[in-house]
This record gives sequence, C-alpha cells and structure tokens, in this order.
Amino acid sequence: MDTVILTTNDFRAIARHVGLNPLMDECIARLRAALQQFDANDTITPVRAGFEYTHPEVGLLEWMPIMQRGEKAVVKMVGYHPANPERRQLPTILSTVSAYDTKSGHLIGLADGTFLTALRTGAASAVASEVLAVPDAGVVGIIGCGAQGVSQLHALSRVFRLKRALIYDIDPAVSESFARRTAFLNIPVYPVPLPQLLLESDILCTATSVEVGKGPVFEDRGLPAHVHINAVGSDFPGKIEVPRSVLQRSLVCPDFPAQAVMEGECQQLSPGEIGPDLVEVVKNAAQYAPCRRQSTVFDSTGWALEDLVVLELLIDYATELGLGQRLALESISRDPHDPYQFIYEAEGLPPLEFTTAAPYKIRREL
Amino acid sequence: MDTVILTTNDFRAIARHVGLNPLMDECIARLRAALQQFDANDTITPVRAGFEYTHPEVGLLEWMPIMQRGEKAVVKMVGYHPANPERRQLPTILSTVSAYDTKSGHLIGLADGTFLTALRTGAASAVASEVLAVPDAGVVGIIGCGAQGVSQLHALSRVFRLKRALIYDIDPAVSESFARRTAFLNIPVYPVPLPQLLLESDILCTATSVEVGKGPVFEDRGLPAHVHINAVGSDFPGKIEVPRSVLQRSLVCPDFPAQAVMEGECQQLSPGEIGPDLVEVVKNAAQYAPCRRQSTVFDSTGWALEDLVVLELLIDYATELGLGQRLALESISRDPHDPYQFIYEAEGLPPLEFTTAAPYKIRREL
Repeated sequence: MDTVILTTNDFRAIARHVGLNPLMDECIARLRAALQQFDANDTITPVRAGFEYTHPEVGLLEWMPIMQRGEKAVVKMVGYHPANPERRQLPTILSTVSAYDTKSGHLIGLADGTFLTALRTGAASAVASEVLAVPDAGVVGIIGCGAQGVSQLHALSRVFRLKRALIYDIDPAVSESFARRTAFLNIPVYPVPLPQLLLESDILCTATSVEVGKGPVFEDRGLPAHVHINAVGSDFPGKIEVPRSVLQRSLVCPDFPAQAVMEGECQQLSPGEIGPDLVEVVKNAAQYAPCRRQSTVFDSTGWALEDLVVLELLIDYATELGLGQRLALESISRDPHDPYQFIYEAEGLPPLEFTTAAPYKIRREL
Repeated sequence: MDTVILTTNDFRAIARHVGLNPLMDECIARLRAALQQFDANDTITPVRAGFEYTHPEVGLLEWMPIMQRGEKAVVKMVGYHPANPERRQLPTILSTVSAYDTKSGHLIGLADGTFLTALRTGAASAVASEVLAVPDAGVVGIIGCGAQGVSQLHALSRVFRLKRALIYDIDPAVSESFARRTAFLNIPVYPVPLPQLLLESDILCTATSVEVGKGPVFEDRGLPAHVHINAVGSDFPGKIEVPRSVLQRSLVCPDFPAQAVMEGECQQLSPGEIGPDLVEVVKNAAQYAPCRRQSTVFDSTGWALEDLVVLELLIDYATELGLGQRLALESISRDPHDPYQFIYEAEGLPPLEFTTAAPYKIRREL
C-alpha cells in the first residue's frame, strides 16, 4: 500500500507546465467554489494547535487538521520562524502537508506545503477581495514584502486590473528586491513611505513578521473610506497588524472565527464587533455587495480548507502529468495480526534466523 | 535541504541485521534510560488530539506530538481502525512518524510508525512490569491476541524468564494463530478459557479493540493477589479493559496522567485513586519495590516520549547501516523572500516563459 510523495521537483514541473498565472487562477476558482459549496456538517476543522517558543529564537510549529467525513483527513504542519531568512537563507514559513484515508488510517500522500501555503494564502485574499473590495480597485499596497507578499500581489492581479503596487518593508533590502521578485506580473512596483501607501491603496495587504506586542504595523491615518485590508500575518497569539480603530469601523470578515479570536485581528474585538465569516460572504456575495464601498478587513489566519483545496488541485495536476514518487512507507504484514511478519517474509530474501546474540553496538551519542 | 524517509524496507533491513530480540532489548534499555533521566522542563508532550468517528465505521486518527525544547519535535500520526484486519487485511493500527527541527521548522524525517508502535508499546510494558510485577513472574496472560499482543509477549520475554503464555481472544482464529506468530520466542503458548487465564497469570496484558461501553474485557474473579496488569488497549474516550474493582485495589500507574484520565483506565478513577506515573516509579524503583507483591496496573495509553525514544533508536540503526532515502521535499528558493524562484531557476532547466494562456484543463472529478 503506497504513499505518494510530491516534492519540490514535482511542484516545479507542475508550475512550469501549467504556468504560474493559470495555476493561481485555478487555485482561486477552486477555493471560491469550495467556499460556495461548503457544508460544516461534512467538514471538520479543529482550531490549529502547536508548539510556540521564544527561546532560543521566536518560533512556532503547528498542525492544521481538516477532515471530510468518511473520506480523508489532511494535516498541514507549518513552521513559522521569522529568523529563517536572515540566519538560514530559508523562508519564514516551511511546511509539509499529509493526507490520510479515514477508513483505514493509511497515509495516502505527503507533499511540500511551502509553495502550497503561498498559493492558498494568496488565493484566499483574492477570493475575499473579490467580494469585499471595490470592483475597480487599481492600487494595491503591500506592507511586508517577503514571500507571502509576493503571492498576495500575484493573486490579486488575477482578479483586479491593477495599475500599480505600493510597497513597504522595514528592511529596505527586502522592499528593494520586491519589484524583481514580482517582475513576472508586469505591474509597476513603487517602494513608498508608509503614509503615502495608506493614502493611495484601494486594497492593502499586511504580511509581516511583526513581533508579539509590537503591532499594529501601521497607524490609522489617511486610509481611503473604501479600503479593503487583507491581514494575512496573523499566526500567533498576541500578534496583530491592523489598528483596533480601523477594525472597529470596518466589516471584519474572519476566515475561521474560532481561530481568528485566538490568533487573528479578531483578538482585538469583542464578539459583537466581528462580522460574517468568509463562507458567509462568499455564499451571499450579492447581499454583501454594498459593503464594498466601505472599509472591510479580511482576517486571514489561514484555514485548513484552503490547504485541502490547493492540495487536491496539485494532486490532480501531478496525476495528470504522471508526477510523484510511490513508497511503501507503513510496515504492513500479510497477516494483519502479526507486526513482525513483514520482516521474515519478503520477496527474494532468505528466511530470518533468529538471534539471541548480544545487542548490536550502536552509537549512543546520536 | 533533505528529508530522510525510512520505509518498511529500511525497518526490515534493520530488524534482519540486528535481530528482533536485540532490537527489543535496545528499545527497552533506551526507554528505561529515558524515563530515568526524564525532565519535564526539557520535554513538552501535549495530550494527543484527533478525529474520532463512528460512521461509516468506528475509527480514530490522531496526532501525538512531543517537543524537546530547542531541539526537535516529533509528531506521530496514529490511525486506529478495528475493522481493518477483517475488511482490509490491514493492521488495526497504522501509523507514521515525523521529526521537525524546531529552529527552522524543517521536516527532518518521516518514518513508518506501525512497526515502531508495536515495539514501543511492548517496551513500555516491559519497563513497567520490571518495576511493578513480581521478579519471578513466569506466566503471562494475553487478552487480545492481535498485533500488539505479539509485541507484549515479545517484550516481556526479554525481561522475565517466562515458562508459558496463556492466551484468550474473542475470535478463535486469532487465538489459534498466536502460537505461530510468536513461535520465534520459544515460549509454550496455550489458548485457555478466560477464568483459567485470570487464575494463573502473574502478568496480564490486555490489548483488545473492545468497543466503547462494552468493557471491561474480563471479570474480577480469581486474579492472583500479586498480579500486574499492562492495560494497553486504551486509546479512545469511553474505552476500558479492566474492571473498576481491580483498579481500586491496585496501585494504578499511568504512562501519561493527563491523557490517561481522558482515554485510559484512569477514566474510571477519582484523582485520589490514581497512583504515581511511570516516570515516578522508574526513577524510584527501590521505593516502589514492595508494591511488586501486590496488585498493580500499568495504564498504558501510549506516550509520545516512547515514540521519540524508539524513533531515535531506529534512526541510529538506519544511519549506521546507510539506510533511508533523501528527498528535497519543501520548496525552498535561493531567495527566501521569493516563493516562486525555485520554479524559474533550476539546474539544467531553461528559464521559465510566463504564460497568460487559458487555464490548463484538469479533471475536476478527481
């Protein structure tokens, strides 16, 4: 019984074959459809949990599970380590994602979750902005120009006719390289002072690694009355990006309310101040259309449904293109009641001789 | 940055090279040492959580995390599906285990957890029985003769001079095949009626898939005053194997108290009736030696520390023997701020041409 493994090579092949823009288009289309059809009775998404630590460095390792009843469960493991880029030349977010058969418990597949996280976080903002931002939004402001900032602009460019992107990062080197990293979008990118960015953005994306207690990442000054904000940096209790006063005058739409009140911008709000969730606004887009002319915030903490949808898309492409490796991972004996039979009986191997010799010497320092 | 994958082939090679008995000896020795040296400040083990379901079949898919501060985290995923042997020719427990670097979030390795679970569950009972059972225990009773029953007898045979095993299973075919499955131990195995098993066993192991609400799996009749019970079937809220009256007159030692009160035999007890945990009795074996002459119960719900210890042992052997496959799983760009660079720039590939063509047609039914 095999486990299919999709590595970075497979995802590279998919992206090169399909094209990054059509791939993002499909992510957005599938996520939109999944939200429109979402039924909470069929799908269980517990709030994610994990290990948080501040020593020796700030970090987080968490699991995001989702189960489709009677079908499969998907668990994304996400590492959030803001010192990664500078200290290790690694992305802040590293991730893998696994799918299990809920009938047998078998691990169906394992895939990279790092590329997937960038795609789905972008796609989620695109779907939310489609229903909550002004339809003619032409200027996107990006605060926090790392990896997630790139896929935010990418995804938004697929659903709006963007004239330009205004960008800001506390690290000048990161904001300087953003234009090169998004050159494939053919959208003019301008590093600007933060006040100008706030004044001119129809859609604002915050994708920062601001420390707990150090937020918000901008002041409530000069924002257009119709601004839509995608706050995607939320992933840690106490971490916030958006000023409370902005949230209070906006329609705040969390992706996953139970999680948003623990880790998202909704931490700053009382229950009555929190608006409808993403499923609700996507299912009833016409009803919420008037909100597009007012201030809105998508509180994007990251929802396992987004991971599931994009994983399924990538698996579809991999299947179509004959990608992926198959490994017999789990030790399964022919007799399910014998945990050791797989050892004695294997094709082409001689029968096992039992030994009662002294323990094999191993290196204990490992 | 590679991820090492250890499959069933690797574990077969390890077991054949080392020998099953020396391998179990090492599991027991390492677990004993880990418990003796355990410091709750260095190691965090949250209570496991997961998806439980009763439709279409009873099942459970859960995650068991453990973190060594500043070092690594290990998450075992365990599926418990009692219909597996009969309906799918698969073991009840299927499992995989992953190790993460808590500095970067990188997935260091992935391994089969099915063989590992059998080894570590056996080893845990051996370590507990060493300190809680009579030193001259010669008769082991096994109630529930599936895969875990095999490794229970195996592990106990490494720390006691066993004269015979008395066995019982509600499925006669399963109890009949037990002698064949444990032939490598050279211990006489007798299927006996349950009352005889209870009367004659110095050590009793319950390793059943009894349904919630259908336990206990034996009556409180005829047990020797000095009996030690390893109750290893506990893995589901409401599932119990041991009569409450037996627990109440015994020293009940849970592996992991916070979990045992939710899923173990300790569900049946008030806090004052629960004894010292496994760490406590192993660290203070001399102090608890008098208890060996009285009734004792090891409430083995399964603790992630056991998984960590046995995973490290198997990794040591794999390293020594040059086993395992290395895959670049996570999509990591040379520029950590660019989630897509790994797509454009890869050795031996032409530069990527961006496309704005219509979305690639994919099969949506998948």
